Amino acid sequence: MSYFDAASAAPLHPVARQALLASLDEGWADPARLYREGRKARMLLDAAREAAAEAVGCRADEVVFTPSGTRAVHTGVAGALAGRRRVGRHLIVSAVEHSSVLHSAEVFEAAGGTVTQVPVDRTGAVAPSGYEAALRADTALAVLQSANHEVGTVQPVAEVAEVCRAAGVPLLVDAAQSLGWGPVEGGWSLLAASAHKWGGPSGVGLLVVRKGVRFAPQGPADERESGRAPGFENIPAIVAAVASLRAVRAEAAQEAVRLRELTERIRTRVPRLVPDVEVVGEPRRRLPGIVTFSCLYVDGETLLHELDREGFAVSSGSSCTSSTLTPSHVLRAMGVLSEGNVRVSLPPGTAEEDVERFLDVLPGAVAGVREKLGAPASAAAPEEDVLVVDALGRRCPIPVIELAKAFPGVPVGGTVRVLSDDEAARLDIPAWCEMRGQEYLGEEPADGGTAYLVRRLG
Amino acid sequence: MSYFDAASAAPLHPVARQALLASLDEGWADPARLYREGRKARMLLDAAREAAAEAVGCRADEVVFTPSGTRAVHTGVAGALAGRRRVGRHLIVSAVEHSSVLHSAEVFEAAGGTVTQVPVDRTGAVAPSGYEAALRADTALAVLQSANHEVGTVQPVAEVAEVCRAAGVPLLVDAAQSLGWGPVEGGWSLLAASAHKWGGPSGVGLLVVRKGVRFAPQGPADERESGRAPGFENIPAIVAAVASLRAVRAEAAQEAVRLRELTERIRTRVPRLVPDVEVVGEPRRRLPGIVTFSCLYVDGETLLHELDREGFAVSSGSSCTSSTLTPSHVLRAMGVLSEGNVRVSLPPGTAEEDVERFLDVLPGAVAGVREKLGAPASAAAPEEDVLVVDALGRRCPIPVIELAKAFPGVPVGGTVRVLSDDEAARLDIPAWCEMRGQEYLGEEPADGGTAYLVRRLG
Repeated sequence: MSYFDAASAAPLHPVARQALLASLDEGWADPARLYREGRKARMLLDAAREAAAEAVGCRADEVVFTPSGTRAVHTGVAGALAGRRRVGRHLIVSAVEHSSVLHSAEVFEAAGGTVTQVPVDRTGAVAPSGYEAALRADTALAVLQSANHEVGTVQPVAEVAEVCRAAGVPLLVDAAQSLGWGPVEGGWSLLAASAHKWGGPSGVGLLVVRKGVRFAPQGPADERESGRAPGFENIPAIVAAVASLRAVRAEAAQEAVRLRELTERIRTRVPRLVPDVEVVGEPRRRLPGIVTFSCLYVDGETLLHELDREGFAVSSGSSCTSSTLTPSHVLRAMGVLSEGNVRVSLPPGTAEEDVERFLDVLPGAVAGVREKLGAPASAAAPEEDVLVVDALGRRCPIPVIELAKAFPGVPVGGTVRVLSDDEAARLDIPAWCEMRGQEYLGEEPADGGTAYLVRRLG
Repeated sequence: MSYFDAASAAPLHPVARQALLASLDEGWADPARLYREGRKARMLLDAAREAAAEAVGCRADEVVFTPSGTRAVHTGVAGALAGRRRVGRHLIVSAVEHSSVLHSAEVFEAAGGTVTQVPVDRTGAVAPSGYEAALRADTALAVLQSANHEVGTVQPVAEVAEVCRAAGVPLLVDAAQSLGWGPVEGGWSLLAASAHKWGGPSGVGLLVVRKGVRFAPQGPADERESGRAPGFENIPAIVAAVASLRAVRAEAAQEAVRLRELTERIRTRVPRLVPDVEVVGEPRRRLPGIVTFSCLYVDGETLLHELDREGFAVSSGSSCTSSTLTPSHVLRAMGVLSEGNVRVSLPPGTAEEDVERFLDVLPGAVAGVREKLGAPASAAAPEEDVLVVDALGRRCPIPVIELAKAFPGVPVGGTVRVLSDDEAARLDIPAWCEMRGQEYLGEEPADGGTAYLVRRLG
């Protein structure tokens, strides 16, 4: 099995496994206790905190261990907002943050706060000027990821931190995807991360709150982790998480070059091997191991199953995937095609042969899905005289497939009206127009759904 | 080293260790994913949930895994209170709950709720009538531990649940100390527990919310664990926790008899071996492995260090211990002596020889601490004519030691006035009077502190 979903969770690093085993025997007791077992646990915890601080580039007493990256974000956002409640109740996030950030923003909004979402460009990147424009006198906190979890785009954190610093607003960086590759640059105020993204065990998140940042922990009091993360410390997992962080950091420079070359192969060869593919995300300022593309006329879930059968574990931001019926908010914010979306995220150590085999297998897998769905061939098909495409009640990617099938029958300059009640069509029909060089005229309400209007340019 | 602090954290059970190792390889991936690794993780998680439900005596879909017992309590209390917000904003807890419950009550009170603390008797037990009296038309939730964590007293959970059921109020049971011994009886509505108390790894708590109980999760939304416990599931630890629960349950009946006999030895022999000792807690309705006693004229922290040096890990609810300067709220609520407090909590498998060695070592350790502190001998000392004992600026147990030293000089029927600014004196001077058969007359404000009045009866 080739596991290409490291951005979800990386397999346990051998060093983490070793550290976990060793500290299961030494670090199980309560570190607040005075007896020998307690003191041993405390020493392990202190040493792990020192090492984590060194890897982050902060002081040990600024580091709090939480039960997950999600909890680090929840705790960090809530504590920073409460700490600056008197300044105001305005929060800035980017449109492509992880769901833990967006869900934190939702509860804040439900409690009377206001939230500004900073848009991204077609590569998924924010502009520092976007944050500058969003800042207000009552802004309590700004949040930005160091790099995007779905498309790998690296964000201009240092520049955004500078813009925030000038306005006296703290910036919380969600460094979940990047901390294994290196420290986050710039004058950020808070940082959150997740150990199982860098080969540590599940159950460990990292929250860093710089000295001087106003912070008011929410929820019931607890004496552990400077009152910022209630509950018994999971010391064996913390020790393993930090050991793993040091281990992947030691290999990071070399591994980054290697993985970047492998993902570059996918970036450049997939569009040549598979017709009607859009590779999304920033081609240069990106994480080494992530590459994402979307395939027209393909159902993401079926493609994932095909690839799984061929021995590849990847994920998808398509609307047709798993339990969700709306396309990934990241792809939507970028305005790129979401159907048939595939995210490949290579764990450190991925073998070149596995990537080559993926490139061998992918074209057949995509073609198979398209054939099942009755998708049009890439070349133009015979013309027909159709003006209205009724795709009501059909799920992504059927509406776009029906549009494409009908399109050859439309005279140049003529208009097609696609009727659809599927949310993904709103994203995918304009994306199809852009890919095909046709003109998207907009949408209008229609009986039982929405009508999307497309003009044939050629 | 003899580890006698299982009520804080039990060492990892060998079965848990084995299960953890196996599932580190099988259960690290995201259980929400569609590929093989994700499906394997999901299967492990589902199986663990089934097994946990069987051990608790509930349905699998009522079980939520949380990152700790503390988080299970926080989440359970907050969710149940919010779920019944329209009924009212009144919460009932016992006076001897774990700090996670009391801290949850504090935030609820700070947010405008009202809290009733049900008192306990001298053994640490609540009366069902105490809960009955506390119930109001606007009571949203009642909380009761299955057994006390400091003195081992078992609470009448089934009776209290019945009282609550009759009033239509859900009861949340904190089963942290007892779930390893058996399921919680009675018609409770919610249950919280902590895996590292039964030999599971750190990082796993259990929250059970019975079907039909109104529950509104607080904080940012998250799709994991039915929306009740955000963050990536720690599947290897969950699998290990449940494996351990099954393993300790299989041994529970036999081990309960054995440990009960060992703690009974301590209960009966300590007062014979060590002068001026009060064994606290209920002698019969108690957990098998916990026994707690307090030693007059002894500083708890120093005694813990002495016992640590002799190779025994125990804990203490004394005010003089570690970072806290107030005596345990449990001992205070019971109205028993808190100074020189020692909690012995035996993990399953504790060897008889270790308990015997503890009984050999304890008298010398206590005597050593008393000698260092200049405590009076147990027999009466020559009389002196002293009426005021000035212990201002002296910390527990000095005020009681000074009282005892001065006491022989007081004529029968005469009164001593102890001046103290130490919070522990408020508890320990009345307790000393009860142990010594002297009359405690009460306290009054005094210059620089409080005056405690004691009449000599004989």
